[in-house]
Amino acid sequence: MYRDPVESLEPLHRVPAATRTLRVGMIGIGTVGRGTFRVLARNQADIAARAGRAIELVIVAARNLARAADIVGPGVPLTDDAMHVATHPDVDVLVEVAGGTGAARDWVLAAIAHGKHVVTANKALLAVHGTEIFAAAREKGVVVAYEGAVAVSIPIIKALREGLAANRIEWVAGIINGTTNFILSKMRDEGLDFAAALAQAQALGYAEADPSFDIEGIDAAHKLSLLAANAFGMPLRFDDAQVEGITALQGVDVACAEQLGYRIKLLGVARRQAAGVELRVQPALVPADHLMAHVNGSMNAVMVKSDAAGLTMYYGAGAGSEQTASAVIADLVDVARLDGVAAAQHVPHLGVHAHATNALAVLPRAAVVTAHYLRVPVAAVSHIQAVSACLAEQRVPVRQVALAAEKPGVGPQVLVLTGPVAQGTLDLAVHALQAQADVVGPVVSLRVEALEG
Amino acid sequence: MYRDPVESLEPLHRVPAATRTLRVGMIGIGTVGRGTFRVLARNQADIAARAGRAIELVIVAARNLARAADIVGPGVPLTDDAMHVATHPDVDVLVEVAGGTGAARDWVLAAIAHGKHVVTANKALLAVHGTEIFAAAREKGVVVAYEGAVAVSIPIIKALREGLAANRIEWVAGIINGTTNFILSKMRDEGLDFAAALAQAQALGYAEADPSFDIEGIDAAHKLSLLAANAFGMPLRFDDAQVEGITALQGVDVACAEQLGYRIKLLGVARRQAAGVELRVQPALVPADHLMAHVNGSMNAVMVKSDAAGLTMYYGAGAGSEQTASAVIADLVDVARLDGVAAAQHVPHLGVHAHATNALAVLPRAAVVTAHYLRVPVAAVSHIQAVSACLAEQRVPVRQVALAAEKPGVGPQVLVLTGPVAQGTLDLAVHALQAQADVVGPVVSLRVEALEG
Repeated sequence: MYRDPVESLEPLHRVPAATRTLRVGMIGIGTVGRGTFRVLARNQADIAARAGRAIELVIVAARNLARAADIVGPGVPLTDDAMHVATHPDVDVLVEVAGGTGAARDWVLAAIAHGKHVVTANKALLAVHGTEIFAAAREKGVVVAYEGAVAVSIPIIKALREGLAANRIEWVAGIINGTTNFILSKMRDEGLDFAAALAQAQALGYAEADPSFDIEGIDAAHKLSLLAANAFGMPLRFDDAQVEGITALQGVDVACAEQLGYRIKLLGVARRQAAGVELRVQPALVPADHLMAHVNGSMNAVMVKSDAAGLTMYYGAGAGSEQTASAVIADLVDVARLDGVAAAQHVPHLGVHAHATNALAVLPRAAVVTAHYLRVPVAAVSHIQAVSACLAEQRVPVRQVALAAEKPGVGPQVLVLTGPVAQGTLDLAVHALQAQADVVGPVVSLRVEALEG
Repeated sequence: MYRDPVESLEPLHRVPAATRTLRVGMIGIGTVGRGTFRVLARNQADIAARAGRAIELVIVAARNLARAADIVGPGVPLTDDAMHVATHPDVDVLVEVAGGTGAARDWVLAAIAHGKHVVTANKALLAVHGTEIFAAAREKGVVVAYEGAVAVSIPIIKALREGLAANRIEWVAGIINGTTNFILSKMRDEGLDFAAALAQAQALGYAEADPSFDIEGIDAAHKLSLLAANAFGMPLRFDDAQVEGITALQGVDVACAEQLGYRIKLLGVARRQAAGVELRVQPALVPADHLMAHVNGSMNAVMVKSDAAGLTMYYGAGAGSEQTASAVIADLVDVARLDGVAAAQHVPHLGVHAHATNALAVLPRAAVVTAHYLRVPVAAVSHIQAVSACLAEQRVPVRQVALAAEKPGVGPQVLVLTGPVAQGTLDLAVHALQAQADVVGPVVSLRVEALEG
């Protein structure tokens, strides 16, 4: 792109447009890569009309070249050397959709070192190595875009970094793992226990053979660390997140929550407090009439509370081939528009420019204050009073005490909804309850999230 | 901003950043202007950290200077000459939040002619004069940004133009008028009729003294024309939209819809068909278990169906001082990032670059195919068969026929849910039903929207 040196001092619109094709090299042609190839090909003209220039896949790296050739046809050169794509002189932007955190880190850093922009949907890579990767990108003046890394079909990173740029964000709460939301929906709708619901999810392709990243909350925590960074302008803090999955969740608690007017969702919550930031993934009760309670199946949603806009919510598919491609290509369109933009004017990788990053502390678990649900298995319904007395003694504010509806094979259960109480205080109370002779099984506690303005 | 002529041929990140303050002139200091002033002042540091440069209000035009001085204090120069602000040499970007379509058009065109960017939340202005305004802006290489014009707190224009840029959008359906959604929620929750619900909305400040723009669907149609243009890359077609408000809606239909498992919402729908685009605002039945049915009170939501991302939804406040300011300032942050960007690389005003605009025809009302709800007041419940027979004869596919639950003072009512049928066919069937001797009152028909993938 040639710029007349005199014109470059003139009003900005006189600068000639960058109209040459944006050349994309892609590593990985699995689920996401295939979707990206297909959507780019199918919507080629529309995408160019939006981007102002064509976006073309010029080389693809794949482990299985025969399978890759079946997908991309004869038009796109293939290689099994990913580093060749990452460093290829004809590539303007690297799309990394191979996954993993080892080789992927090397490819991404190599592409950056060669002055290429990077688009990735790899949340694990960024949650673990994001600080290093973004620093390298800043150094070279290139962009690492990752809309596809969180709640794929939903442009939530863009909403946080750009759409809500005027706001001081107070909290973000998301249903950001489709597998666990599918399992929780099955548990509720069909009265299944966790193991049966997981088996269904696996049979239907909503859960992987090894589902531990999903069901233990790791995947949600990866995404939450990206959301929190963009919401609060803080560094990535995946290692400090409190992470609890749904493997220990029992069907009886899903039913008891329902009885009290709640549904259980695996929520990632990042909330700004005076003393730091809450950063936590856990199954929590959400009011049944709340919009977030109606996010079912494998769908995702993120709710944001900010000072000017108030409550906003963003809903869509959280996984899928073309759903993720939608985000990857949106990032490519953004990159296509970057020509002529000074790096200091790019949308910053984590929402705010580096000099303004907030080194917010992550609050320890014990200091997190929320309402709680307790289920206390008791020897007899009359022991409801002993439960209340114990909670009063432990200074846990109580909002509601009820007996669980009778179920075959399940003994009497005292249900409690508390007011806001620090986790540390609640843990002590649960310990005290557990020590009562009347209490005949493990006391279950879950957080209750009002998700209100 | 100085650029070294040699460096301007180098990699883009070497170009020095535009770091000087973005100077804003604002016309209007009513509800939205006040919110914009307050949020800009309160979140000054955070906004600069996101934008990469400070954003400063340098002059404000107001009709009532004393009241304006009370709001902005001594720090901001005031004038009662709006054109002075629109053409002021120290203003980089004009924020027009005075409203109206007469003088506002003159101010905006003058600002553009003086090479200034414009940010406005004025949907009426853009729906009516947008084609002229955007053409003038394109000619001068400036941007007219208007996120605040549609569903204020929700970054839906950004989602359509950027977040979903990879997609071919199939339809957009929105609850995009808070006043009517508040009224409909009251009608349902409290069993009120329209007039009583409107009176409550007025008493609580959710409806204006003259509510006609809202309750007759005009405001929603203004916004829908902007949504459709951005979704489909078509010109603004406000004049061609089919617009029906909620003034004729009866409480009995809200109750009957509920009985059938639906809620009534005022929907703006833009749907791409082979023969053209549906562009219509009307009260419609939405399944009660659908997320859109749970958008209550004065909240707004927009659902988008696109080929790659699938169904996504965006939810938030549809009005309010700081809620609108959130969008106005987000637009200012975008403008702050435009320095150094060739005009051809700006996000286009209506989603696609001008050369690619689709001159899509708006489908006539008679050709719009949806399912329908019918309520037929009959002399006796036995006449249910005559209703079915008439619809069969008129070739209207019938999915469900039921009798309305009895209500005091309301005679027997036959309720019908049809399959998909062209409005023209349905109108003839309604005419035929109305002519039956058994039919003792006006037949009511409303569209049913599944809002599914």
